[in-house]
Amino acid sequence: MSSQLVILGASSATPTSNRNPSAQLLNIHERYFLIDCGEGTQMQLRKFKLRFAKINHIFISHLHGDHYLGLLGFLSSLHLLGRTIELHLYCHPPLKEIIDVQLKHSETTLRYTIVYHFYDKKATEVLFEDDKVKVETILLNHRVPCRGFLFTEKPGLLSIKKDKIEYYKIQVKEIHAIKCGEDFVTAEGKTIANHYLTWPANKPVSYAYCSDTCYDERILESIKDVDTLYHEATFMQSMQKRAKETYHSTAKEAATIALKANAKKLIIGHFSARYSDLNPLLEEAKAVFENTELAEEGKVIKF
Amino acid sequence: MSSQLVILGASSATPTSNRNPSAQLLNIHERYFLIDCGEGTQMQLRKFKLRFAKINHIFISHLHGDHYLGLLGFLSSLHLLGRTIELHLYCHPPLKEIIDVQLKHSETTLRYTIVYHFYDKKATEVLFEDDKVKVETILLNHRVPCRGFLFTEKPGLLSIKKDKIEYYKIQVKEIHAIKCGEDFVTAEGKTIANHYLTWPANKPVSYAYCSDTCYDERILESIKDVDTLYHEATFMQSMQKRAKETYHSTAKEAATIALKANAKKLIIGHFSARYSDLNPLLEEAKAVFENTELAEEGKVIKF
Repeated sequence: MSSQLVILGASSATPTSNRNPSAQLLNIHERYFLIDCGEGTQMQLRKFKLRFAKINHIFISHLHGDHYLGLLGFLSSLHLLGRTIELHLYCHPPLKEIIDVQLKHSETTLRYTIVYHFYDKKATEVLFEDDKVKVETILLNHRVPCRGFLFTEKPGLLSIKKDKIEYYKIQVKEIHAIKCGEDFVTAEGKTIANHYLTWPANKPVSYAYCSDTCYDERILESIKDVDTLYHEATFMQSMQKRAKETYHSTAKEAATIALKANAKKLIIGHFSARYSDLNPLLEEAKAVFENTELAEEGKVIKF
Repeated sequence: MSSQLVILGASSATPTSNRNPSAQLLNIHERYFLIDCGEGTQMQLRKFKLRFAKINHIFISHLHGDHYLGLLGFLSSLHLLGRTIELHLYCHPPLKEIIDVQLKHSETTLRYTIVYHFYDKKATEVLFEDDKVKVETILLNHRVPCRGFLFTEKPGLLSIKKDKIEYYKIQVKEIHAIKCGEDFVTAEGKTIANHYLTWPANKPVSYAYCSDTCYDERILESIKDVDTLYHEATFMQSMQKRAKETYHSTAKEAATIALKANAKKLIIGHFSARYSDLNPLLEEAKAVFENTELAEEGKVIKF
């Protein structure tokens, strides 16, 4: 199992010379999920040597430019690089209109199909699910309709103890059932309890992406006990009034959400361009929730 | 007079880790013209410490993404930075639809007005003219409607010789007429020829931007005797067939156009991502037209 998150950008609306707008690449079990796609995302993917072709699922939180303006360039590059397999795009419905009008006027017909998945207008929902991972929406509270995403790894199989295979003469065809939790019955009819034959599975990891949003405790239900929480922290607490007016959060508020959600780790991002030094935001959050990190470009967070 | 060009990006359709898509900032007499605005242009402007607020005119050559996908982010940042004075945008008509649909869905009303200037469908035309500079279109030959731009400085005033002002007791109110080329008549009625009183004006500079286009000698009429010519050179001559198919040019073709136009200097750009080393393109062009430079990010070309 290899799960990791790469921060591609964590600036708020106006990018700075060293902070790109929002984008992250999450890899859970070799499923690559691109989360938001601000301007310059394709250049960031190249810079950090991340392969375009592996990305099959893109999640766009909302239709403010700093969260999607890199999408058309990325889609065009996939086309020019020869992609033919379908790409799943999770978004609000108007994004299709925005993409279509631009493809029309550039007289481009993509070689691959975009499979659109539009968000439910009001409720949380499961966007993606396979045998390894589930992705659900989180209802965020922003100036325009906005979704966060909860990525949850499914429990893996148990690990069978090799010495027990030999000792009990377990056949290959019987192993899968044991890994799924079943007891084993020997040729002599003796039942061996599963816990005696196996090691526990790796603990499933979970990751919640919450940007953009004002402080809103209604998200706690969705993100309770999450391993890693990314929560926007556009401002310091001294600008809480401005945060509220613009439907954004402060570093202290992000940390308060992490604490109340019983998260294990907090990553803060979506920083206002006014902060060239991010340490005061980190310190403000750490005062409430110690295990906080800054979302910095190129940072890799292993789960 | 201070005229210079800054290269912000010179990649073709798929940007590389060190080459951004097309954008240039031209300054003629403190008029700042942004020429094309590929993805990441606003980050490039910041990187090279070029002030957003000075730009009042943006020229978009055509509606392929690598020439305009940075525009919406740049327009949004101008809005967020508080711009209120109008901005002139020279483009093909569909760009307005592309901008409007995105502003609508982000629920943004810009604080400033965009004054649109749509290109004539078939003919060259004057896009901008004041007492210092004229900007005209060049009809390029590309897969979609495409315009180049010819920027021409107007002849400046003559420089008056200071010692002659004293010697002939020339009044302040009489100086402007002499700078404009008139002779001077002394109090005694003696006519002093203008060339005896003045130094010649600085030679006006001209700059032609030709991207994207296949090799097409019909542009020679527009760019004859230009000081500096930017001509796309997406491919090497060994890929001429591919260049022709995609309505692009080779380095040799760009140099041939510069030679036939009697340009003084050639800048080649819009390089395919397949070329990590650009020197072979430079050598190919130089073999035909010696005074050739590569368009490299951050390069400043003084006129």
